[in-house]
Amino acid sequence: MQSATEELESKGRAAKEASRKLARSSTGVKNKALLNIADGLLAREEEILLANRQDYEEAEAGGMSPAMLDRLLLTTSRIAGIAQDVRAVAGLPDPVGEIFDMRTMPNGLQIGKRRVPLGVIGTVYESRPNVTVDISTLCLKSGNAVILRGGKEAIRSNIALARVVQDAAYQAGIPQGAVQLIESTERAVVNRMLKMSEFIDLLIPRGGAELIKFVADNAAMPVVAGGVGVCHTYVDKSADLGKAVSIAHNAKVQRPTVCNALDTLLVHAEIAQRYLPLIAQEWGEAGVEMHCDERCLSILKPLPNLKLVPCSDQDWGKEFLALVAAIKVVDSLEEALEHIERYGSGHSEAIVTEDYSAALRFLDEVDAACVYVNASTRFTDGGQFGLGAEVGISTQKFHARGPLGLKELTSYKWIIFGSGQVRG
Amino acid sequence: MQSATEELESKGRAAKEASRKLARSSTGVKNKALLNIADGLLAREEEILLANRQDYEEAEAGGMSPAMLDRLLLTTSRIAGIAQDVRAVAGLPDPVGEIFDMRTMPNGLQIGKRRVPLGVIGTVYESRPNVTVDISTLCLKSGNAVILRGGKEAIRSNIALARVVQDAAYQAGIPQGAVQLIESTERAVVNRMLKMSEFIDLLIPRGGAELIKFVADNAAMPVVAGGVGVCHTYVDKSADLGKAVSIAHNAKVQRPTVCNALDTLLVHAEIAQRYLPLIAQEWGEAGVEMHCDERCLSILKPLPNLKLVPCSDQDWGKEFLALVAAIKVVDSLEEALEHIERYGSGHSEAIVTEDYSAALRFLDEVDAACVYVNASTRFTDGGQFGLGAEVGISTQKFHARGPLGLKELTSYKWIIFGSGQVRG
Repeated sequence: MQSATEELESKGRAAKEASRKLARSSTGVKNKALLNIADGLLAREEEILLANRQDYEEAEAGGMSPAMLDRLLLTTSRIAGIAQDVRAVAGLPDPVGEIFDMRTMPNGLQIGKRRVPLGVIGTVYESRPNVTVDISTLCLKSGNAVILRGGKEAIRSNIALARVVQDAAYQAGIPQGAVQLIESTERAVVNRMLKMSEFIDLLIPRGGAELIKFVADNAAMPVVAGGVGVCHTYVDKSADLGKAVSIAHNAKVQRPTVCNALDTLLVHAEIAQRYLPLIAQEWGEAGVEMHCDERCLSILKPLPNLKLVPCSDQDWGKEFLALVAAIKVVDSLEEALEHIERYGSGHSEAIVTEDYSAALRFLDEVDAACVYVNASTRFTDGGQFGLGAEVGISTQKFHARGPLGLKELTSYKWIIFGSGQVRG
Repeated sequence: MQSATEELESKGRAAKEASRKLARSSTGVKNKALLNIADGLLAREEEILLANRQDYEEAEAGGMSPAMLDRLLLTTSRIAGIAQDVRAVAGLPDPVGEIFDMRTMPNGLQIGKRRVPLGVIGTVYESRPNVTVDISTLCLKSGNAVILRGGKEAIRSNIALARVVQDAAYQAGIPQGAVQLIESTERAVVNRMLKMSEFIDLLIPRGGAELIKFVADNAAMPVVAGGVGVCHTYVDKSADLGKAVSIAHNAKVQRPTVCNALDTLLVHAEIAQRYLPLIAQEWGEAGVEMHCDERCLSILKPLPNLKLVPCSDQDWGKEFLALVAAIKVVDSLEEALEHIERYGSGHSEAIVTEDYSAALRFLDEVDAACVYVNASTRFTDGGQFGLGAEVGISTQKFHARGPLGLKELTSYKWIIFGSGQVRG
């Protein structure tokens, strides 16, 4: 039997080799591969569900939490959903080959940039088998080979899904080796994978904050790190109360378990007396637990049926990922900006205001991937931003920031058309 | 006295703090600072030359090589040249604040990107004091704070130059702390600096291949690594002989000590008999030592006054940085492409051909920062590519590739103008 290290090395080398050919695969071949994958997922549903059933039963017997079990579970309708997402990726424009910034220099050289794939993308994820298909198809469409390493609880599901992806892609003309699944579930494999900068050009961790931090701290290659979002919504003294209620409510309640959900609500003191009871009533009905500072508490305490908790310092800068919000009353826009600078994670921040200058100042001064005026932070998402699909949301400043679409999985090369020019 | 670590920490923190304000400094203030710096360099020339004289004498007494001494030396005319470069940076467009990719989504959200500085740029360099001014001014113009750590042989020069830059910049309204020079010359300082990812957003090493590799391997933050160029020029069977001679000659001889100079000449067998004597004669007159494969040797041996050396395997993939070229006769474009893929460093590669399809195939298949048809690789340079100035040449694919100008020292944030939108 192959050792784990040998598996990694040989799959790494195969992916790198395939990546050179894949970089030149036509849009037609890539789209055909994606449509084949979508068809394959539906046609081989039984095989996938069987593998997933085994994973699920073992995980359940092993005491996996219901939330994790739900992420692991595949069903007929979930597979149909995954297949539909793959078709959507086929419909997106191909970023590879785009020529841009082309110009003619005074000496007649025609110089520009041509978009090319990064090469090989590695991904380390937990027990969500849909990531296997999701990342593979985004990598294929952007001309990148991919090395997948999913959680061991989903290994049978991942093997089944990767087999479908590989068969369908290679049958359509994608170079053999472009999609690699690491089957070894040894923990040490991840450590080694993070050092394989000779074979992997970019690493995308998908999962909880702990996994992402581990990958970011230990990888020898660039990492798209993100996912952690401590998001603030600041309700300015000049806010439209109706907008402020619906925006904060949406940001907290529409999907509380995701990174772009509201964590801390900052409210200007001049409007707190009128605004806080309105949002608290909405949140109360939705079951939101409110961690309030003193001024907020004194306003909300008289009201019935609210889950109020006096806040502590630990509430600021905390990503709740649940129906919990911290609330602070501030005396000025400056205080809100300082709070966000100190506690924000650089993900998504919003101001609700009708004051033009306050809006512009907030846009200027907040240093985050996405800065909103009068809209819910829940919009931070590749689909919502018009990118079609996303591989993640970056809170780094290097390479790309915010939602990462297909274009962000590419680089470029300079191309120079000469007619004999030499340098003087 | 402050310990080296304390110096690093306090200067790192100060740079980070200044960077937040500097990010919002106006183009006017930044340009005024640059013009002040240029004036200051001329006005305080005496102080700079005195410091440089001390460095130079100490280095000379310590046995520094003449080439290194020449890099260390400042003169009246060199300072004037540096000042002129600073004025040129003042004249370049400010990348910060550019708004791009702005669009209106179906729900009315207006979404786009706004260019922002990266934050704090660290630079580790050797004993070229001009880098102190060069990098500082490019960072200031792009709104980034900078932490400079130059070679110990140039420490007095660097202190004098940094003082001029700081005085002139702060007087113009640049936030205090935006330019930091690490004065400790302990070697361990660099190791600690490479781990300061809390204060440094990007690291730019400037110097020899060894320094660059050390920084790239050890830095905890992103690094712009480049500088190593193993550059090929391939003369196709259909090449115009005149162009092929002048291009290869220029690429090798015009400035042999730089990264974009020719290292290996690949010549198609069908044209070798006619072409090689022509280029060899030119190179022979320029004193180029030619490391030839067997077929090349058999063609050139009969000719007089050439420095011919039979090549060894070590010649392929070697960056000579001198009047030395390796020459190989190949049987096809494919063989040239394979050689370049195997031995190239991804910097600059050229084909000389009159065959349209060969030109396009070369552009398609060569994976390098800059791919040329019928032009000298010596053009790989920020100025020549119209970027105005450069901080280096990246052979990485992440973030930016090839010559890096001011724009490549920036990131962006998404800005979203809403009117109450929430996610459904």
